Amino acid sequence: MFDIAIIGTGPAGVCAAINAKLRNKSIVLLGNENLDGKLRKAPKIKNYLGFSEISGDELADKFLEHLSAMDIQITPKRVNAVYAMGDYFALEVHEDFINAKSVIVCTGIDYKKPILGETEYIGRGVGYCATCDAHLYKGKTVCIVADNEEFEPDVKYTSELAQKVLYFTEYKVSENTVFPENVIVIPKKIKQVVGENKVSGVVSADDIAYETDGVFFLRQSMGAARLVPGLEADESGHIIVKRDMSTNIDGLYAAGDCTGTPYQYMKAAGEGLVAAQMAALYVDKRK
Amino acid sequence: MFDIAIIGTGPAGVCAAINAKLRNKSIVLLGNENLDGKLRKAPKIKNYLGFSEISGDELADKFLEHLSAMDIQITPKRVNAVYAMGDYFALEVHEDFINAKSVIVCTGIDYKKPILGETEYIGRGVGYCATCDAHLYKGKTVCIVADNEEFEPDVKYTSELAQKVLYFTEYKVSENTVFPENVIVIPKKIKQVVGENKVSGVVSADDIAYETDGVFFLRQSMGAARLVPGLEADESGHIIVKRDMSTNIDGLYAAGDCTGTPYQYMKAAGEGLVAAQMAALYVDKRK
Repeated sequence: MFDIAIIGTGPAGVCAAINAKLRNKSIVLLGNENLDGKLRKAPKIKNYLGFSEISGDELADKFLEHLSAMDIQITPKRVNAVYAMGDYFALEVHEDFINAKSVIVCTGIDYKKPILGETEYIGRGVGYCATCDAHLYKGKTVCIVADNEEFEPDVKYTSELAQKVLYFTEYKVSENTVFPENVIVIPKKIKQVVGENKVSGVVSADDIAYETDGVFFLRQSMGAARLVPGLEADESGHIIVKRDMSTNIDGLYAAGDCTGTPYQYMKAAGEGLVAAQMAALYVDKRK
Repeated sequence: MFDIAIIGTGPAGVCAAINAKLRNKSIVLLGNENLDGKLRKAPKIKNYLGFSEISGDELADKFLEHLSAMDIQITPKRVNAVYAMGDYFALEVHEDFINAKSVIVCTGIDYKKPILGETEYIGRGVGYCATCDAHLYKGKTVCIVADNEEFEPDVKYTSELAQKVLYFTEYKVSENTVFPENVIVIPKKIKQVVGENKVSGVVSADDIAYETDGVFFLRQSMGAARLVPGLEADESGHIIVKRDMSTNIDGLYAAGDCTGTPYQYMKAAGEGLVAAQMAALYVDKRK
């Protein structure tokens, strides 16, 4: 059981980790070991106070140095869901769970809004972790919608259990990639999930209906509402936080772009600090 | 008329200035040219993301370099009051005024709460700018309460107009300082302002009553409620802000320690950024 689990390694997550550790809390920092991809790609940053001009790549390296100086490691695992268990949180990580007394969500922004019917059928055919739930589709047909090639191993794994996988790709598949025979690659977006009590099909953007028993959406950035059942978000999908970065779930905090605009490194870092100090107070109080 | 006036040169004010200028706004940054005194005194800072360990002095120099790279000058003037004039703000600076379309208050925390009777008699004998209002006490007795030797020139100036100055010092007066004959230095704190319709006296901490026609409180950090008439603050004197750093006064924003705990550089800088971008939007909208 960790004191504080921090999800995401953008400026908010990294700053939260540093401040939680400075408060003598046991922490787990989950995310990309190379830090946030968007940060690395920023050509010139002029408004991060203390560096009059710095590239995103250089700033990310400064963040890694800071983590290293504090002896903080990044656990490069993807969190599929966070469950509030009453007096602790269970983070679903592949087929395993990580437990923590408090959680700080720093998952950035989710560029994609849910499609029609998506949130309606969560748990009734719609899922976000193929490797967790592929077994539900043994001998059946299942769709996978992915926005990045990093999910291709999940597609292959699912194809070993399902009879047929309809793989909707929202990215350009490499010509060298070979999929198992029962995977049908469909380079289209889908616009709707349909069904009655549970999912019975999807509709592609060009209005073609496909029958399926379920659909997995595999996205690099997960919307907050998808990640944490019950977490309050606004219409744009931003997590609703108070000034102390607390959310509607006791013990769960959020920081950075996922809490709303402006999407800026300095704002994210400041919020990460506040969230960490508040989470540390929360952990201290419940001892 | 400036687009944005920024009051205070701690991390919040400096970061606000940089971000307002990056948004192509005309700005005036008012405060200590050497930056925040408290920051300079911090021995080791470990939680400012990007610098794994840095002294307050070094960090303040980085901030000055950043200002210099952006060609931003600090105007080393003390703001005594900010008046909302409807479609602009008037900042009282000694006997002069600076006008701006929007204001960002980054004045840090006020360690001292108002004493008994102080806020009650504002404008009826209680004042905060001796050089502005000393003329009201021509031939009369006036008290000055100061927490720093930087106000000694104000005491001398006031003594040229008033018949008698009771100078209550909340700091250690240098042995080499010589005051005019009509200045009576009293090394005590005062605990109450008394009067009926207007001030008639003060009471020192050791319960001695002194007759006076008025009293000036000269403090390095002014409470928000004193600086901006009508500005909403909580019980601790922190300015009440929304997540976008807006206050109850349209066009007036606040950032940093003056908005509440935790008192941390990274939080202050992040808030300065948000306040600047929101103030810039405000200025753009009212064009």
